[in-house]
Amino acid sequence: RYGYFGRGVSLIFCRVSGCLTDGRVFLSVSGEDMVCVHSRDTTGLRMLQNDGVEVGFPICGNIMDEPLKDVQEVMEQRKLSWKNVAYMGNDISDATCLNLAGLSGVPADASKEAAHAGSFACRQAAGMGALREFAEHILQQTEKAKMQMKQDRIDRNNF
Amino acid sequence: RYGYFGRGVSLIFCRVSGCLTDGRVFLSVSGEDMVCVHSRDTTGLRMLQNDGVEVGFPICGNIMDEPLKDVQEVMEQRKLSWKNVAYMGNDISDATCLNLAGLSGVPADASKEAAHAGSFACRQAAGMGALREFAEHILQQTEKAKMQMKQDRIDRNNF
Amino acid sequence: RYGYFGRGVSLIFCRVSGCLTDGRVFLSVSGEDMVCVHSRDTTGLRMLQNDGVEVGFPICGNIMDEPLKDVQEVMEQRKLSWKNVAYMGNDISDATCLNLAGLSGVPADASKEAAHAGSFACRQAAGMGALREFAEHILQQTEKAKMQMKQDRIDRNNF
Amino acid sequence: RYGYFGRGVSLIFCRVSGCLTDGRVFLSVSGEDMVCVHSRDTTGLRMLQNDGVEVGFPICGNIMDEPLKDVQEVMEQRKLSWKNVAYMGNDISDATCLNLAGLSGVPADASKEAAHAGSFACRQAAGMGALREFAEHILQQTEKAKMQMKQDRIDRNNF
Repeated sequence: RYGYFGRGVSLIFCRVSGCLTDGRVFLSVSGEDMVCVHSRDTTGLRMLQNDGVEVGFPICGNIMDEPLKDVQEVMEQRKLSWKNVAYMGNDISDATCLNLAGLSGVPADASKEAAHAGSFACRQAAGMGALREFAEHILQQTEKAKMQMKQDRIDRNNF
Repeated sequence: RYGYFGRGVSLIFCRVSGCLTDGRVFLSVSGEDMVCVHSRDTTGLRMLQNDGVEVGFPICGNIMDEPLKDVQEVMEQRKLSWKNVAYMGNDISDATCLNLAGLSGVPADASKEAAHAGSFACRQAAGMGALREFAEHILQQTEKAKMQMKQDRIDRNNF
Repeated sequence: RYGYFGRGVSLIFCRVSGCLTDGRVFLSVSGEDMVCVHSRDTTGLRMLQNDGVEVGFPICGNIMDEPLKDVQEVMEQRKLSWKNVAYMGNDISDATCLNLAGLSGVPADASKEAAHAGSFACRQAAGMGALREFAEHILQQTEKAKMQMKQDRIDRNNF
Repeated sequence: RYGYFGRGVSLIFCRVSGCLTDGRVFLSVSGEDMVCVHSRDTTGLRMLQNDGVEVGFPICGNIMDEPLKDVQEVMEQRKLSWKNVAYMGNDISDATCLNLAGLSGVPADASKEAAHAGSFACRQAAGMGALREFAEHILQQTEKAKMQMKQDRIDRNNF
């Protein structure tokens, strides 16, 4: 919805349940729980890492807790501002981070609060390629930002 | 379809298979069966619990048995009438409870008998967020009922 | 497509993979394979059994083998003709049985050869309620056949 | 998109993740990962094998590595040219093989790079019958090529 005005993303935070996975947990009697992850999405993460973008997953004990502190802690360690951070979330507790991040993405099946807060709405649902779509968007925007910086230097040198 | 005229729901009964789960059971040779549950739905349950709504799951040996006795037993212990009970079901054996409950919800993929008996039809299928939708509906209706009671008190005081 | 002219079905044969299940097999490294079954469909089987219909699953070593011999063996033991047998299949190897059975059903995602041979096309895909749909169709047709036989007796007695 | 001008396919290479499977991996805490495979697709593979087509799966440590070397190694051993090879892939790393193969197929949910490079676009998504569709296409094209060669011999003999 809004353009990206940073100098490129160097960190992405992605919710595991409902963004990397489709949000489902497979429960067995023995407690051997499973989740499922799509290779399209893990390829997306690898594309980001190949481009120098660090990938983080917020650790929340409770899905209703905001992952804000987790993200800010890592940002301070890396001396990053929100402009350089991408965030992918899918539910009400992600709204703050989605609003703050330089680039924010939501899967097609996000809750209305998350969908409202995110700037990039994926066509794919979570666990089916949404993260891949957002990863490609991030790489495009970072590419564009770098081109723009280059152009700005050229323009500056011409005066 | 019909409005809610109770003073708020304090108990919800939700069928596990076909409402909390998508109705599928994963069977293995060793008998280590699995079911899958969506985080959107478990978040919905937590939203209800945070609002003081107790959550119950009817225990039925056979899916064709009516869970009516299970529900009535808990209602008697809590001294609740049907007006204060929400029920979510998806099949023919849930029809009676769906008809009696103050608020009743059915997932998008419920059987025609359940769909006919339920008052709130979710847009989502079971195990994909239907329970979350119904939870948000319950919280809204309870909020509305509380607002109405407040308004009634104000009106009464003004005469 | 064609009406049912038998006196009611007393045996149903249903392919496991692609009719009772959705056709998928979950493979693990340890060989602990899983399949998944929907409660709507197992309820359908129970509805048939409650009505006196016996349920059989053809055992085929290879999915490309025809289950014809399996079915005929059971039919001979029970002294049944094809008129009294319902068959549900989803692939090319089921075509013969689908053509012979008094009532034959195919899930929405059956192969074109099976879809062409079956008389009742379910709206649901395999493993998502197709078997339930076919079970309800069988019970309806059996009910209708019984009503017709009753009517025939009344008509005969009136002359 | 383009016709097939070879004398029939005698080898198919098919990506496992995202072609034979739907691309999802089920992860458990104990590391007992699972993938799921559809019986429609395994039947498709058996149809190819019954017709004398050898089936290979490229082994790639990393999904972003091109499987080109794997395929070429087998081709050299069998003394085959690309005209006699079918390839099924779903992502950017498959583009080269898809472009080179005599017959190339992509599932409905392939990445845009793969979809662009493949000549036969399946209507089904990966893990839901796409491989079966492509297998039937290969068998048809091979049949057609054999008929054409026969016709050519007849025409030649008539002069």
